[in-house]
Amino acid sequence: MDYNTLYSNIVNKGSFLTIGLDPTRELLPSQFASSKYPLFDFNREIIDATSDLAVAYKPNLAFYEAEGPLGWRQFEMTVEYIRRRDPSLFIIADAKRGDIGNTAQRYASYYFDRVGCDAVTLSPYMGEDSIAPFLKYSGRWVIILALTSNPSAEDFETNSVVAKKDGLKNSVQSPLYERVVRRAMEWGSSENTMFVVGATRSQQLGEIREIAPSHFFLVPGVGAQGGSLQEVIKEGMGERCSLLINSSREIIYAWRGADAQGGERQFAAESARVAKSFLSTMGESLKRLQQRSQEL
Amino acid sequence: MDYNTLYSNIVNKGSFLTIGLDPTRELLPSQFASSKYPLFDFNREIIDATSDLAVAYKPNLAFYEAEGPLGWRQFEMTVEYIRRRDPSLFIIADAKRGDIGNTAQRYASYYFDRVGCDAVTLSPYMGEDSIAPFLKYSGRWVIILALTSNPSAEDFETNSVVAKKDGLKNSVQSPLYERVVRRAMEWGSSENTMFVVGATRSQQLGEIREIAPSHFFLVPGVGAQGGSLQEVIKEGMGERCSLLINSSREIIYAWRGADAQGGERQFAAESARVAKSFLSTMGESLKRLQQRSQEL
Repeated sequence: MDYNTLYSNIVNKGSFLTIGLDPTRELLPSQFASSKYPLFDFNREIIDATSDLAVAYKPNLAFYEAEGPLGWRQFEMTVEYIRRRDPSLFIIADAKRGDIGNTAQRYASYYFDRVGCDAVTLSPYMGEDSIAPFLKYSGRWVIILALTSNPSAEDFETNSVVAKKDGLKNSVQSPLYERVVRRAMEWGSSENTMFVVGATRSQQLGEIREIAPSHFFLVPGVGAQGGSLQEVIKEGMGERCSLLINSSREIIYAWRGADAQGGERQFAAESARVAKSFLSTMGESLKRLQQRSQEL
Repeated sequence: MDYNTLYSNIVNKGSFLTIGLDPTRELLPSQFASSKYPLFDFNREIIDATSDLAVAYKPNLAFYEAEGPLGWRQFEMTVEYIRRRDPSLFIIADAKRGDIGNTAQRYASYYFDRVGCDAVTLSPYMGEDSIAPFLKYSGRWVIILALTSNPSAEDFETNSVVAKKDGLKNSVQSPLYERVVRRAMEWGSSENTMFVVGATRSQQLGEIREIAPSHFFLVPGVGAQGGSLQEVIKEGMGERCSLLINSSREIIYAWRGADAQGGERQFAAESARVAKSFLSTMGESLKRLQQRSQEL
């Protein structure tokens, strides 16, 4: 899917919500206890209830990998189902892979050729060698970890890195995540590269937006992890939206929430209710965006 | 497996060779073309021919993941087969995973509880949150990427990071990989943490050995990627060996090598021949190590 198509889908749906499909078997509603494909059956009902509200789905592979070969089968069934349900949905394999050369190529071949995902999340630690094989696929995306929303992002991601400025003896410092963004912008373009930037760090979100004005950011951590949706939009929205806001547990486990009604049998309706709660703020910000672009 | 047991196995075998089981279906000898489990059938013959020569096996998950659910089945069959063949073999899942909290827990549960690997390789980018869940498993190991052997390790791993020294206004700089090693030594101990250090960087190998005198290092890049075995031993060997030297393609695809004899039907014998070629240097260095420890 190219940038313009993704942006059109966002405008048409009035949504840049990404739903993380991260099911743990033991936490599913009891009606799935005897299912052969519990993760898939659960996902399917979530997708049915939310596909009009979300512009993207993001299965995190850990939750499928944990179940062995049958888990992987259910990941593939989930992607297939999303495609059948609505071909305009953007599908992100949240794999956070990072390996080199022919090994990276094997991962790329799986997620893009075999399963047909639109994007895969990658860890930048090993540098360009671990990203480049994915960038050969036209119309597919890498989503590179830049600044994540977890507390220990400060172990390394926010470390000050020294870079020597060309032609100057003086050196300049910048956080590692900023260097990751700048380097990755040299490997690919805003047409095939996105960055993960956590919602819990809205000030840095604004700074990264200055560095990468048109790249899409995948933003986890809104809601459950404490980030404010309005704050993220204010700091992170680009001229063509360029935001994908992810929510996982808060949506898929909505029926466990304090204000849930109807219990586990109504789990999908509860998911839709929480998903919908993101949309008024998103819709308003998209309207403002379009007004601004018409005024220009 | 605990440190002492691993060290005993190394001494008893006269080997700290790790064989990377990274089969690509299209590159296997033609006799596997119609096999239902080509990766496993190939691995089994390699294991049969080399299990007396290696102290560890390291399947890289990309090569199994690329084949979908059936690939994962073959990964699990491979681990099971290694265990049955020789329970003293150390099994490393080369997954390079890196995710946080309950997501990391799902990966740990798969590799340790379900499959029973001894160790899993992890990317440090997201910090302690992405490593800690694996360290709760007694007798299991994390192997953290520090300084890898690929050229673009210089994109980030070797960047100078500024750290403020306690009580001093002056700041000190150290490479990112060094900071990773120092931080990770605070999370775990030499009984549950190893580091990946590429053989192509023997000077840094010596420097990292000074920082972490007793931690095991997993060293890829000997041979095919250009690192010298003797150089690695000289710079990297600790008092109780503390080295696992990995070779993958050079061993499993030995029959494709320029000096191979007998063609693809003899592929396993060729793998054994190349594996054996590592052992005289390894055996000698282990003898010197034991002599030194007896003299003390």
